[in-house]
Amino acid sequence: MSLLIKGGTVVTADATTRADVYCADGRIVAVGENLDVPAGAEVVDAGGALVMPGGIDPHTHMQLPFMGTVASEDFETGTAAGLAGGTTSIIDFVIPDPQQPLMEAYRTWRGWAEKAVADYGFHVAVTWWDDSVHADMGTLVREEGVNSFKHFMAYKGAIMAPDEVLVRSFQRSLELGAMPTVHAENGELVWTLQQKIKEMGITGPEGHPLSRPPEVEGEAANRAIRIAQVLGVPIYVVHVSCKEALEAITRARLEGQRVFGEVLAGHLVVDDSVYRHPDWDTAAAYVMSPPFRSKEHQEALWRGLQSGNLQTTATDHCCFCADQKRMGVGDFTKIPNGTAGVEDRMAVLWHHGVNAGRMTPNEFVAATSANAAKIFNIYPRKGAITPGADADLVVWDPKATKTISARTHHQRIDFNIFEGMTVEGVAAVTVSAGEVVYRNGALDVKTGRGRYVKRPNFAPMFDALGKIATAKAPVPVERKLPDAAE
Amino acid sequence: MSLLIKGGTVVTADATTRADVYCADGRIVAVGENLDVPAGAEVVDAGGALVMPGGIDPHTHMQLPFMGTVASEDFETGTAAGLAGGTTSIIDFVIPDPQQPLMEAYRTWRGWAEKAVADYGFHVAVTWWDDSVHADMGTLVREEGVNSFKHFMAYKGAIMAPDEVLVRSFQRSLELGAMPTVHAENGELVWTLQQKIKEMGITGPEGHPLSRPPEVEGEAANRAIRIAQVLGVPIYVVHVSCKEALEAITRARLEGQRVFGEVLAGHLVVDDSVYRHPDWDTAAAYVMSPPFRSKEHQEALWRGLQSGNLQTTATDHCCFCADQKRMGVGDFTKIPNGTAGVEDRMAVLWHHGVNAGRMTPNEFVAATSANAAKIFNIYPRKGAITPGADADLVVWDPKATKTISARTHHQRIDFNIFEGMTVEGVAAVTVSAGEVVYRNGALDVKTGRGRYVKRPNFAPMFDALGKIATAKAPVPVERKLPDAAE
Amino acid sequence: MSLLIKGGTVVTADATTRADVYCADGRIVAVGENLDVPAGAEVVDAGGALVMPGGIDPHTHMQLPFMGTVASEDFETGTAAGLAGGTTSIIDFVIPDPQQPLMEAYRTWRGWAEKAVADYGFHVAVTWWDDSVHADMGTLVREEGVNSFKHFMAYKGAIMAPDEVLVRSFQRSLELGAMPTVHAENGELVWTLQQKIKEMGITGPEGHPLSRPPEVEGEAANRAIRIAQVLGVPIYVVHVSCKEALEAITRARLEGQRVFGEVLAGHLVVDDSVYRHPDWDTAAAYVMSPPFRSKEHQEALWRGLQSGNLQTTATDHCCFCADQKRMGVGDFTKIPNGTAGVEDRMAVLWHHGVNAGRMTPNEFVAATSANAAKIFNIYPRKGAITPGADADLVVWDPKATKTISARTHHQRIDFNIFEGMTVEGVAAVTVSAGEVVYRNGALDVKTGRGRYVKRPNFAPMFDALGKIATAKAPVPVERKLPDAAE
Amino acid sequence: MSLLIKGGTVVTADATTRADVYCADGRIVAVGENLDVPAGAEVVDAGGALVMPGGIDPHTHMQLPFMGTVASEDFETGTAAGLAGGTTSIIDFVIPDPQQPLMEAYRTWRGWAEKAVADYGFHVAVTWWDDSVHADMGTLVREEGVNSFKHFMAYKGAIMAPDEVLVRSFQRSLELGAMPTVHAENGELVWTLQQKIKEMGITGPEGHPLSRPPEVEGEAANRAIRIAQVLGVPIYVVHVSCKEALEAITRARLEGQRVFGEVLAGHLVVDDSVYRHPDWDTAAAYVMSPPFRSKEHQEALWRGLQSGNLQTTATDHCCFCADQKRMGVGDFTKIPNGTAGVEDRMAVLWHHGVNAGRMTPNEFVAATSANAAKIFNIYPRKGAITPGADADLVVWDPKATKTISARTHHQRIDFNIFEGMTVEGVAAVTVSAGEVVYRNGALDVKTGRGRYVKRPNFAPMFDALGKIATAKAPVPVERKLPDAAE
Repeated sequence: MSLLIKGGTVVTADATTRADVYCADGRIVAVGENLDVPAGAEVVDAGGALVMPGGIDPHTHMQLPFMGTVASEDFETGTAAGLAGGTTSIIDFVIPDPQQPLMEAYRTWRGWAEKAVADYGFHVAVTWWDDSVHADMGTLVREEGVNSFKHFMAYKGAIMAPDEVLVRSFQRSLELGAMPTVHAENGELVWTLQQKIKEMGITGPEGHPLSRPPEVEGEAANRAIRIAQVLGVPIYVVHVSCKEALEAITRARLEGQRVFGEVLAGHLVVDDSVYRHPDWDTAAAYVMSPPFRSKEHQEALWRGLQSGNLQTTATDHCCFCADQKRMGVGDFTKIPNGTAGVEDRMAVLWHHGVNAGRMTPNEFVAATSANAAKIFNIYPRKGAITPGADADLVVWDPKATKTISARTHHQRIDFNIFEGMTVEGVAAVTVSAGEVVYRNGALDVKTGRGRYVKRPNFAPMFDALGKIATAKAPVPVERKLPDAAE
Repeated sequence: MSLLIKGGTVVTADATTRADVYCADGRIVAVGENLDVPAGAEVVDAGGALVMPGGIDPHTHMQLPFMGTVASEDFETGTAAGLAGGTTSIIDFVIPDPQQPLMEAYRTWRGWAEKAVADYGFHVAVTWWDDSVHADMGTLVREEGVNSFKHFMAYKGAIMAPDEVLVRSFQRSLELGAMPTVHAENGELVWTLQQKIKEMGITGPEGHPLSRPPEVEGEAANRAIRIAQVLGVPIYVVHVSCKEALEAITRARLEGQRVFGEVLAGHLVVDDSVYRHPDWDTAAAYVMSPPFRSKEHQEALWRGLQSGNLQTTATDHCCFCADQKRMGVGDFTKIPNGTAGVEDRMAVLWHHGVNAGRMTPNEFVAATSANAAKIFNIYPRKGAITPGADADLVVWDPKATKTISARTHHQRIDFNIFEGMTVEGVAAVTVSAGEVVYRNGALDVKTGRGRYVKRPNFAPMFDALGKIATAKAPVPVERKLPDAAE
Repeated sequence: MSLLIKGGTVVTADATTRADVYCADGRIVAVGENLDVPAGAEVVDAGGALVMPGGIDPHTHMQLPFMGTVASEDFETGTAAGLAGGTTSIIDFVIPDPQQPLMEAYRTWRGWAEKAVADYGFHVAVTWWDDSVHADMGTLVREEGVNSFKHFMAYKGAIMAPDEVLVRSFQRSLELGAMPTVHAENGELVWTLQQKIKEMGITGPEGHPLSRPPEVEGEAANRAIRIAQVLGVPIYVVHVSCKEALEAITRARLEGQRVFGEVLAGHLVVDDSVYRHPDWDTAAAYVMSPPFRSKEHQEALWRGLQSGNLQTTATDHCCFCADQKRMGVGDFTKIPNGTAGVEDRMAVLWHHGVNAGRMTPNEFVAATSANAAKIFNIYPRKGAITPGADADLVVWDPKATKTISARTHHQRIDFNIFEGMTVEGVAAVTVSAGEVVYRNGALDVKTGRGRYVKRPNFAPMFDALGKIATAKAPVPVERKLPDAAE
Repeated sequence: MSLLIKGGTVVTADATTRADVYCADGRIVAVGENLDVPAGAEVVDAGGALVMPGGIDPHTHMQLPFMGTVASEDFETGTAAGLAGGTTSIIDFVIPDPQQPLMEAYRTWRGWAEKAVADYGFHVAVTWWDDSVHADMGTLVREEGVNSFKHFMAYKGAIMAPDEVLVRSFQRSLELGAMPTVHAENGELVWTLQQKIKEMGITGPEGHPLSRPPEVEGEAANRAIRIAQVLGVPIYVVHVSCKEALEAITRARLEGQRVFGEVLAGHLVVDDSVYRHPDWDTAAAYVMSPPFRSKEHQEALWRGLQSGNLQTTATDHCCFCADQKRMGVGDFTKIPNGTAGVEDRMAVLWHHGVNAGRMTPNEFVAATSANAAKIFNIYPRKGAITPGADADLVVWDPKATKTISARTHHQRIDFNIFEGMTVEGVAAVTVSAGEVVYRNGALDVKTGRGRYVKRPNFAPMFDALGKIATAKAPVPVERKLPDAAE
């Protein structure tokens, strides 16, 4: 089974060149001008279009059990929706309950994901601590290809990890060559504000952003980053939504610290006026954490991407339909948190990023696939167009337009946070593991065709961090001791 | 009993003028050129000298029970030493044990302080939380003239206040019009580093700064400040020792937040090389928290004072003699934390500040008395030279020099962290409540002559904060609710 | 002639106290509770009101010849309008034409100002350079009480001072103990943008802000500040209008540099949408440089005041009526630059500052009088309420309201940039040199009653700067020289 | 003629992989594991070593006529020295005298460069302005493959470009799709300080850094960057030597501006103590502009590289021997400015960068070749290891050490600023255009084998900038005009 993509312009994070791409056995075999069509090869005509690495969404929650319900999108429908938007890989999350063994939760999620139709991996959350967690982290990294762990600094009384857990888990991650990641919100403050706002008589979705202001995220981001700094660990901050958190990342990066930041497509273009929408269902549909922010934050996030202080884009794809959201009628703290987007991320970013002059097409590739692949150590297998890489590609038509809508999207949710947005630049053809899985608006996928992607530990930055630790290791002062006081 | 200080140059935080100062009944009565000598008035000749408000040291710990011993300096000797250096008021700390009622601790400290020979007040520490703490805070503010509360973010397993206590106590402080203050170090990280460093075989005083790096302080300062921001409370950060904490304060102040920072004389001029001194007793003598820092931090702290981002200078005067320090032979975490300085602060700051061109004499007065008086709401009773103010004054000889030494100081401790430093500019005469209490190197004080100073709550900034809170109060959205999901 | 202001609350930059104020012979004689009414004293009842130092507007241009016309407000009407708003002193500008001797221009302006009805002083502009300018600067400082010089970095082809003039004049100012001040806009860029925008077919007032974007001001502010830093000179940046310039000031202050910033009442509350007003006369009425900015800048400027990085408020009062503005019909670069405000500054700042919780009443006094008096070295003669100070006072009614309008203001201009703004808090009575000059909305002044105020050189900061220069003076390396190459 | 590099680890800016590299006809033909040895191919055994793109030094001055003499290193010796250190391309500078036609100067330099033994290109300096300069810039870009122009903000009275020239030339560069670059030092301040320091009696090399303090560079960098911002042009700042200039770049990048910064190997590791060396010749040997800085700046520059705010490393290779330097005996302003390094850059950066944990090997490649290739739009022809790229490679032995010395280096100069530095990690074999040109310490090159590299204009960022300009283009307000004033 082989495939030749002809006549396109290959756009990677580094360069733009006219080239054909030949794929066989799921891998890219050759990239060059005017490649001959091998016998039996399927040919995709990319004339006038761009050929880019398939997108990687490093933050999704398919069929997540959360806040008393379960996300409506499963691994099959969710990965399919991703393919329809040019995204060929996701990294989802295993989230153990406190006290639940990590390996048990991991196996549960692996089971759920077997029906996926595109490639996937897992971050594993550390929501509690004891010796078994320490041990399971080792097993996950060494045997299961997990190279990142997640920590929730919010959700007090549920999965919140206090500083003590952060410190233990970050230390263990360093030892294992795995990346700690954090959801940065100060859970104590969120809880306090939730009570205060309800006491003020505010019970609707407009209470949600009031209970999670940017300062709460900025504080937590800074705290996690400084803990990582003290311990000499790299760190990745998920869904950076506000300038306060971005500034915490930026400060640390300016000092040379290995800190990474992810931004969601939604946070780049949606503002917090949605929470005051007169229709409750609409306002509730936007409830996610951290919430959408006032407009100044969107501009700041774009600048974060442009300056390289944010490296990846994601969606936190976590679907709850209107009937689920209504669990929070009368109490905004009970509205299931989550919004969709795995299908729309690339088009939204292209339109508002590339078309607006905020990023070049190469920078777009970096932000939608290559950087995530590098940080999570699967580059150039993913995120690159080079012989030997997985044949995950998107043929991008920069002139085609579409209007995003829940009525037409492939996502299993009754709402779209980008509803009505017309974007120029869309996925025309998506190729996964060398197969054409999406073309002319139609998906062609078989349940379970997606593969679990093992991610090796000890990305190159760990070697650099080790050298710094060695160089800075303190030595005791030789002294004659005085008599001790009794 | 009246006193006329003649022929001096009056230096306040605002202006420098030639004027005499006439005091009667403990107060300043007149300030003007060529005042007549009232009958019976004692005359101090201040010709060629400066007349400034007596210093206020807002951070001392007289006879503090701590780490298994008790500070060697008591309220009598300590306030006397202050007078010898031109400092006429201190604000000390009541530190209840966890579970101890605040009022009980407060009464204990008030008892200890009765023998003081200069004026004093108390910050009260909140080291735990329940309804009685909430109630006692009210009593202290409304009946006892306490307008500030202290929170230790370090000392895990002892007096450390976790975020939950910070949040409750800050809210209560706002309600009462009192200032929350914090000792900013991340106690979890300190504890972790202490274990790690001891595991590396480092047990001497050089381990102390390694276990409390600047990042640990910067993180905690930022956290406390952001919590205060979210709650709309002012905040005061004690003993800022490093640029990381200063930057946290500066960032917040640039946003208009009401944040205040205190710097110790020691942190301005002593660097961390002391901890590697070959003599254990010497190295241990410098053990305090936060520790002395590398030189770049001293320069940053001076700039903090110059730019107004740090407002007050203090000492954290807390004396432990060599035999007490030796409790930590073989384990630096057991060395009692504390250094002296109440006598030396003003001369050190004058020499390295004014003589070096870093500050004007007016800025010196702001930093040694006026700003503390304003922040803790006792201005212009203290910190000013104006009719009606307390007659607490220092006649400063800018040309006199002295060499600081434990052999000659009045402090009850066998070590001086400024040992051997020759300073130009010293207190020639100190006046407290209209009495000459120090002259020609000699103290003339009677046990217990010092007075407890009640500090009113609701400094002017609280009114401004209240207006902001009112302006920002959110309103609910009027909506027809959908049916709730069951 | 004596005056007693009874029953008020005295508000200064430092403190708020209940006190009466007794004035005689143009000076404040006593400040205290329940002062007796001296025989023959006029009594002002300040019950329920605040008594504050009269305002100082450090930036006005009365009857300025500029851009082919002359400002419509003269020294008499302009100072009278100031009194009606509580402002009792102004500092205006002598602006020599290039090649015109400074002394000649100075004498011209002194002549014009003789009819002033409130106190005044002059900054003198250095618009060119030769030995006579160097000499005249000396005469002005030593004999005429001028302690500040102004430099325009914009207005290419007219009064723009290139770097070479800045450097020479700043050096000379340091030598004389005088403060250099700058109008910070990059004149080369302004000129380039003016041509470019006209080439785009934009000729109306909306072209004005497009030709002077914030970056142009930020660049110039930074340049002037860094030149001052290298030379060891203090510097004062007039009419800071944007966050870019504020950031330049803030950066330098954070490094301990002696930099000061002034903000105009207009820039704090008016945004740049005015330039797109459909009525040409209205849009043109707002033309001044630097222009009004987009809303984010207003918030930044308030934070600059709050954080102390901006110290003074002014107006750049420079009146041109509609018929004068129309000189620029068809070419926005010919619209005379200038707006009014000397009468409105204090009420606008009180309403949007104090009432909104952005500043305390004490901070208001600092920003409207005390800080300007300190920077220009006339404190406590001006800006204070203390025995010996000039009896320039305003009795401020914080509950009274008024609606600002060109129909009712005292300014000699047919437009008010605050038109329709209702403010709470107004000047009820104004006292100048111990005389009630404004009460119940009525002025009572005699032509020429205002006095020229000499300002001494060598404010205290110069002594500090001198000490730094001495400490940093470099020394040559002693070396045996090699043979020189021929 | 073909070449197979076997058994190495290929390190690019993006990834590290085990692969062989096959080159033919000057280009890379294949990259993959276990490539067969084609008949007739020369084989280089890279076992245990790294194979990286050959270095690009984007800042050299071979045989430059400057300050009354001519740099001792010519294009042949200089490019040869580069090859000995792993650098396979340079970008040198054409520097016309003021009033000299650009094309004339360009042809002169092209002639001089014909004997080069490695590939080269030219930046062309704009030192003056008239219509011919405007025209010649077009010719250079469109016909000669020049895509960058240089501007000196220092050297008053010689080649200094005042703001007016910067503005004109930047605008023209944008139009042509070429990159403006600047030497950032405020020439007016340098000139003033030079006089002042000589007046203080300082005439030796120690006067050099005193006359060019960091603020002077920071100011100019900020000015050039803000001019570029206002005009919508990208900009590249050469030889960033201090934190002030780095901060100017960083601030702009954080706002999303397209600003690039270059750092010299020397500025990263040499500090300004060299100028106080007791031997005049030694001190003078380090004279270059901007000068070496105090240690804090080195740390800042490393952080600039680590955070991505500096992208490229260079040397400003400009050799003057002791007899030339002695032209400045008795007057430091006459010492020819320049130091060497084209041979040492990569080893110095590897040792202090990679070995110290400051950068990964991939980041090293980015900083030594890939980024320069991208910014100057010759990527992936240069700076990459991919089929089709020029076969410019270095086989790097990370375990080999050498001690840098003028006695052993290939550079034609009698001094080495890194003298005595032992580095681990050196170029073992260098390949240029598919030929082994350096192996086992020996060069094997033929005069004139180097090629002039044309660089295309309109790098991808220009398209993005164009989109922003279009989006921000202002529109006039439609208005009925009033009658104009006469």
